[in-house]
Amino acid sequence: MIERVRVAVVGVGNNVSALVQGIALYRASGSVAGIRRPVLEGLGVGDVDFVAAFATSPEKVGRDLSEVIFLPPNNYPRIIGELPLSGVTVCRGITDAADGAEVDRVAAELAGAEVVLYAAPSGRPETALAYAEAALRAGAAFVNTTSDPVARDPQVLDRFAAAGLPLLGDDLTSQFGTSIVHHALLRLLEERGLTLTSSYQVNLGGTEDFRNLVEHGEGKMRSKLNALTSLGEAPDLVEVAPLGYLPHLKSHKVAHINIEAQAWGETTVSLDVKLKVHDPSGAAGVNIDLIRMAAGASRQHRGGHLDEAASLLKSPPGTAV
Amino acid sequence: MIERVRVAVVGVGNNVSALVQGIALYRASGSVAGIRRPVLEGLGVGDVDFVAAFATSPEKVGRDLSEVIFLPPNNYPRIIGELPLSGVTVCRGITDAADGAEVDRVAAELAGAEVVLYAAPSGRPETALAYAEAALRAGAAFVNTTSDPVARDPQVLDRFAAAGLPLLGDDLTSQFGTSIVHHALLRLLEERGLTLTSSYQVNLGGTEDFRNLVEHGEGKMRSKLNALTSLGEAPDLVEVAPLGYLPHLKSHKVAHINIEAQAWGETTVSLDVKLKVHDPSGAAGVNIDLIRMAAGASRQHRGGHLDEAASLLKSPPGTAV
Amino acid sequence: MIERVRVAVVGVGNNVSALVQGIALYRASGSVAGIRRPVLEGLGVGDVDFVAAFATSPEKVGRDLSEVIFLPPNNYPRIIGELPLSGVTVCRGITDAADGAEVDRVAAELAGAEVVLYAAPSGRPETALAYAEAALRAGAAFVNTTSDPVARDPQVLDRFAAAGLPLLGDDLTSQFGTSIVHHALLRLLEERGLTLTSSYQVNLGGTEDFRNLVEHGEGKMRSKLNALTSLGEAPDLVEVAPLGYLPHLKSHKVAHINIEAQAWGETTVSLDVKLKVHDPSGAAGVNIDLIRMAAGASRQHRGGHLDEAASLLKSPPGTAV
Amino acid sequence: MIERVRVAVVGVGNNVSALVQGIALYRASGSVAGIRRPVLEGLGVGDVDFVAAFATSPEKVGRDLSEVIFLPPNNYPRIIGELPLSGVTVCRGITDAADGAEVDRVAAELAGAEVVLYAAPSGRPETALAYAEAALRAGAAFVNTTSDPVARDPQVLDRFAAAGLPLLGDDLTSQFGTSIVHHALLRLLEERGLTLTSSYQVNLGGTEDFRNLVEHGEGKMRSKLNALTSLGEAPDLVEVAPLGYLPHLKSHKVAHINIEAQAWGETTVSLDVKLKVHDPSGAAGVNIDLIRMAAGASRQHRGGHLDEAASLLKSPPGTAV
Repeated sequence: MIERVRVAVVGVGNNVSALVQGIALYRASGSVAGIRRPVLEGLGVGDVDFVAAFATSPEKVGRDLSEVIFLPPNNYPRIIGELPLSGVTVCRGITDAADGAEVDRVAAELAGAEVVLYAAPSGRPETALAYAEAALRAGAAFVNTTSDPVARDPQVLDRFAAAGLPLLGDDLTSQFGTSIVHHALLRLLEERGLTLTSSYQVNLGGTEDFRNLVEHGEGKMRSKLNALTSLGEAPDLVEVAPLGYLPHLKSHKVAHINIEAQAWGETTVSLDVKLKVHDPSGAAGVNIDLIRMAAGASRQHRGGHLDEAASLLKSPPGTAV
Repeated sequence: MIERVRVAVVGVGNNVSALVQGIALYRASGSVAGIRRPVLEGLGVGDVDFVAAFATSPEKVGRDLSEVIFLPPNNYPRIIGELPLSGVTVCRGITDAADGAEVDRVAAELAGAEVVLYAAPSGRPETALAYAEAALRAGAAFVNTTSDPVARDPQVLDRFAAAGLPLLGDDLTSQFGTSIVHHALLRLLEERGLTLTSSYQVNLGGTEDFRNLVEHGEGKMRSKLNALTSLGEAPDLVEVAPLGYLPHLKSHKVAHINIEAQAWGETTVSLDVKLKVHDPSGAAGVNIDLIRMAAGASRQHRGGHLDEAASLLKSPPGTAV
Repeated sequence: MIERVRVAVVGVGNNVSALVQGIALYRASGSVAGIRRPVLEGLGVGDVDFVAAFATSPEKVGRDLSEVIFLPPNNYPRIIGELPLSGVTVCRGITDAADGAEVDRVAAELAGAEVVLYAAPSGRPETALAYAEAALRAGAAFVNTTSDPVARDPQVLDRFAAAGLPLLGDDLTSQFGTSIVHHALLRLLEERGLTLTSSYQVNLGGTEDFRNLVEHGEGKMRSKLNALTSLGEAPDLVEVAPLGYLPHLKSHKVAHINIEAQAWGETTVSLDVKLKVHDPSGAAGVNIDLIRMAAGASRQHRGGHLDEAASLLKSPPGTAV
Repeated sequence: MIERVRVAVVGVGNNVSALVQGIALYRASGSVAGIRRPVLEGLGVGDVDFVAAFATSPEKVGRDLSEVIFLPPNNYPRIIGELPLSGVTVCRGITDAADGAEVDRVAAELAGAEVVLYAAPSGRPETALAYAEAALRAGAAFVNTTSDPVARDPQVLDRFAAAGLPLLGDDLTSQFGTSIVHHALLRLLEERGLTLTSSYQVNLGGTEDFRNLVEHGEGKMRSKLNALTSLGEAPDLVEVAPLGYLPHLKSHKVAHINIEAQAWGETTVSLDVKLKVHDPSGAAGVNIDLIRMAAGASRQHRGGHLDEAASLLKSPPGTAV
């Protein structure tokens, strides 16, 4: 029987709630509904155990992971009837510039973890690097789900490679989201010989992550546009409206997509799409794969970047910081 | 300079209106907007001339093709400012069981045509076969856009093959329509590991073709369901609502598609799509390719079925009658 | 303290499931969410007790009402955690032409009931009348939720009036449904001076009631059109597509409404609406009011038709049978 | 026969384009499609003549009004085949703090005008007041379509009243737009006893007016929310997403509205609406009424505010500046 992956999580937000609950749900039910890769590197989605967790908010520190995932501002729904205590007490995470002693403290907490899933809010690159350093010292692989550059730092990547530890990052794609649907439809039009006239997407959401994106300016709009145009769409025909943070949506993300095109005879074709997903599920559905890839490679002493992870990452090594 | 294809049309409905007008539009503008294959077999979309046309309605017979395409119940819009007279007078078509003399009369009218585009209403297989016979006698390729079995009749197919004349049929796909979009989205879900819960499509239209389909029962619903399930969708999860004939839509077709699925954690994903197209444009965008394929092969003395046409046909030879 | 209304139900379908569960839910929670009239005739929505129930299916007869509401083909969801047994055993209902003895048997079962809610499938007018007769003999008011004519039978109405027993019918409106939304939007356009160009609605559902409507032809389409046009809409501009029975929708009803109009300068205005409701909730939300109206009037010895009920009925006395 | 109203316009943007073209269209066709009040104060919509026009952009000054309405950034469509020259040459408008001489110059240009329609961009209150002053001196009524306070300035209002000249403002409602539809649906829910759970609206547009609103912050979001909540909606349940300026929409405005509510049994009702209008048509459809009200009252020497105009204005006298 395969040994379960021992995972430490940094940040206990909605995405970790979706991951922790989903693993428990699938372990209990044996269902594989909504799972992209039921088995990966010989590991099922239930073959993951949590062994450590870090958070900075005083309300979270010192409590069991299974409780902390439901504290506000987390608003991912309860998807499993009863979630037993995990036995993992959330530790105090790194808040400021971490010195060597602080990194050693974190490394000590990581003892026994095979994979560190870094899922704190984006925007604190020093903190991200400090956790990566602690993972290295503790002999754990590192998965950076934020847009802060860690795997794109060639020196850091080299050190993980040398240590035979995978370093997967940066920034997650989603299992299923607006860009994927929008892109697929634009591709379909092109394949069928239709000529795009104009297109837009609007994204609305209610998570803390969404609020951060809205408050930190147009970052995501541009990255969303990049996500589409890097795939070949004429950039001036596709428009992305400002993100809307709507708290009532809770962990839902809603997108409205419109596509106008010309078919034979230059006659009009129009497509209107409404997409509604749970945003954290899209992240968890990718994290479960990155964790298993990292564990599988780590057990085979394959370190650094993994080619098989590239399509799951928005900014893999080699892309612009 | 390449010789233009000389085409005869049987039936002067919306689909022929879209074809005739579209060719004139593109020839005048030089645009390629909405064209899937600007050049095929060396032929541009403007390299098609109409040389004969057949209809059964007394109001249509004896008038110029360029006028007849705008007569009711045709309701495809006028997409080109001014359409000059074509010089083709619409002939009386076959109405009943055609005897040999009648077939000879039609064959004589077809003299000089390279390709016969059979675009009459579906549901009269004897008539379809009579026109195919006339095309054979006149030395013209035959394109059957109806669901009546012609290319699926092995004896007829053999005779065309022996004569070095292409026989393309039966039944058109569309350049872009509900099944294509619905199928692409279901595929996308599957690729991303989502689990389909349920899905439906509703199709509404205002053309005579649509009215015929509605009045002749559930034919198309079943064929639409086939179109999806033949592609692997679990047949019991995808439902097709009855077609709705709504005259106000004129030549528009509107589809409402809903998809419900489960993502990670068995959380719900929903997709709602409204698609609006001009139905006859979807047919014309395929007919223009079948005509050019037929002409190209005919000029190379390749007869019978053409592999390159198979993806443009719903029921190519070998599929069930 | 007010005396609770004692209700007998005929037919134990989705609508009765919604009513029974809703009453229990509101009684338990004290909530008034989704209730149109929290108090009517001094009666809260929890002030209703079930004292008898009739069904014809052998699986239903002899079991407790609280179990029977969940038997297939009922597919209204379980909206309350735990529903205690009601203490009401479902009796065998009238299946064929009921003779006097049969009516007496039913009347005996109705002993103690103040209001009989007739919620069997439409299409059996003799049966409806037999239950009305039994109610009269038992001294109970009668609410006919089907389209079968009972309250529109002047002789029957007179006998209820003479007995001081309310007779409310025929056929329910919905608390909230397609016609209401469609009509409100068409009215709004008119008020603002827009000129309607065309409009359609499509209705999709998954209940047994829906299946019956689909199988028994276009009845509802026409009645839906009537519902709109009786309100003044130009009948030839509003089209109703065929009903679609889609089992996966379960007790949901989904409507797609489109409205196209002209504003200033004859420029186009378009409105697309998707409406999703639980169909049986729309019935229960009206039945709870009819029951309380009937009980209130009965206690005041006001019999026959009640003016205050007219707006809750599609075909009150005086309208065409 | 009634004397036509002589109107001067300040600002030659999309809204004036819609007004000028619409009047010509209706005058030519005799149609009343899309007109709220075909006759008002005895005046038809065609009974309006333009006698002066002001603009600040050098490309506009000195050219005929009928040409200027089509200059970019105006992007309202051409809705009438051919628009003859108006004979009105666009004059240089007020750009800076206008001294008395400048006001006199404008007043001289206004000679003969009965109504001045002030339709410049919002945000220059001094300029608005200078034009109002010029109108007073010229003996013309004044309609302020901007959000700058003119009619809400009690001293200015008094002077118009004393002069027997109507002063209508400030800020236009729309003939038909998002707030109207959203509000009507929320009202409908309430009437039917549904309990609102949450609701949002997103507004997207492509006009210069829209760009100004987006660039000048959340002004309109808040005013939109006010528009809804002043009508009684629980303010914390209705959310308005940031405006999206999408140039490809040109003069269209698109709104996506979602409403989630509870019906009987606390079951979910959801409504999704897409609304697409030409924004300037909504303004012109109201301006045509304000102009006729102003002219009618002026001819009767009724000056100052007009009660009949209040419902067409967002900020009539007495509301907060």
